[in-house]
Amino acid sequence: MAEIQRFGVTRRWSDAVVHNGTAHFVEVPDDMTQDVRGQIVQVLNQIDERLKLFGSNRTRLLQVLIYLPNLTDGAVLNPLWDNWVPEGHAPARACVQATLGHPDCRVEMVITAATGGS
Amino acid sequence: MAEIQRFGVTRRWSDAVVHNGTAHFVEVPDDMTQDVRGQIVQVLNQIDERLKLFGSNRTRLLQVLIYLPNLTDGAVLNPLWDNWVPEGHAPARACVQATLGHPDCRVEMVITAATGGS
Amino acid sequence: MAEIQRFGVTRRWSDAVVHNGTAHFVEVPDDMTQDVRGQIVQVLNQIDERLKLFGSNRTRLLQVLIYLPNLTDGAVLNPLWDNWVPEGHAPARACVQATLGHPDCRVEMVITAATGGS
Repeated sequence: MAEIQRFGVTRRWSDAVVHNGTAHFVEVPDDMTQDVRGQIVQVLNQIDERLKLFGSNRTRLLQVLIYLPNLTDGAVLNPLWDNWVPEGHAPARACVQATLGHPDCRVEMVITAATGGS
Repeated sequence: MAEIQRFGVTRRWSDAVVHNGTAHFVEVPDDMTQDVRGQIVQVLNQIDERLKLFGSNRTRLLQVLIYLPNLTDGAVLNPLWDNWVPEGHAPARACVQATLGHPDCRVEMVITAATGGS
Repeated sequence: MAEIQRFGVTRRWSDAVVHNGTAHFVEVPDDMTQDVRGQIVQVLNQIDERLKLFGSNRTRLLQVLIYLPNLTDGAVLNPLWDNWVPEGHAPARACVQATLGHPDCRVEMVITAATGGS
């Protein structure tokens, strides 16, 4: 039976859950008062920090599901994303419109990543 | 090559699919005539039942994606959820708005869980 | 540390990512000028082709998340899907409404599959 490791556990969710070499986590920007660019930059930075929790890094992303309340924000997302993803290590990616839990939230990402790498 | 176990297989979907120590399943309430509270309670109970199929339990949830047609129903969901999730074992969780396949359906959950635990 | 294999890597995404015996990929139709039926048939064919990349096949699907911009297109999707899924091997499946990145795109699928099988 493979062990489960949880990071940042609250009553409602964990910041990350690792099992069998795979990590699952969800990111929304910590500061939702920022504009869409600021929120996307935050989420990408938060992913980097989260990956460090279990000794991984952004070369080990497997799948990212991106939710945008306003699909036109894809024009802001894509250049930031393309610059952030290490060349040759892009994950599978879906990006769809969805209204999010907090009305000020402009982006939410659901991430599956491999552990290891450091 | 890791074996795949399927439970409750129909022409269109399986109730749960287990592979390599990880289970994948999707729940909508069996009885959609109930109100949103009743539907959420049902789905949480159904998750418990599903986990038993492969000898797991709600301490071994890895990730849950929650779709609500009406995001205001989050106010009903969250207390029920918080009470249901075993303290210290919360999964990664995303909750977004989505219109669902059946017009009476008030909640749908996509679950990734670890097997084992019993 | 389990190795990661990426197929069809671009700056923005990979066509498929394999890790620890599990593959992650996302499909939208290559030709979005076709009607919804044509687009769904394309996506199912593309899944078959993608699975071949890592020596798998449609009997080894674990989970499929289906996004339809128009939920009424479920009436077109379901008979095609039911005919395509090998009997006894259906994956876990969710199908919800979502507006997609390209306005002509009528279907997007997020697939988790097991490797092996051939």
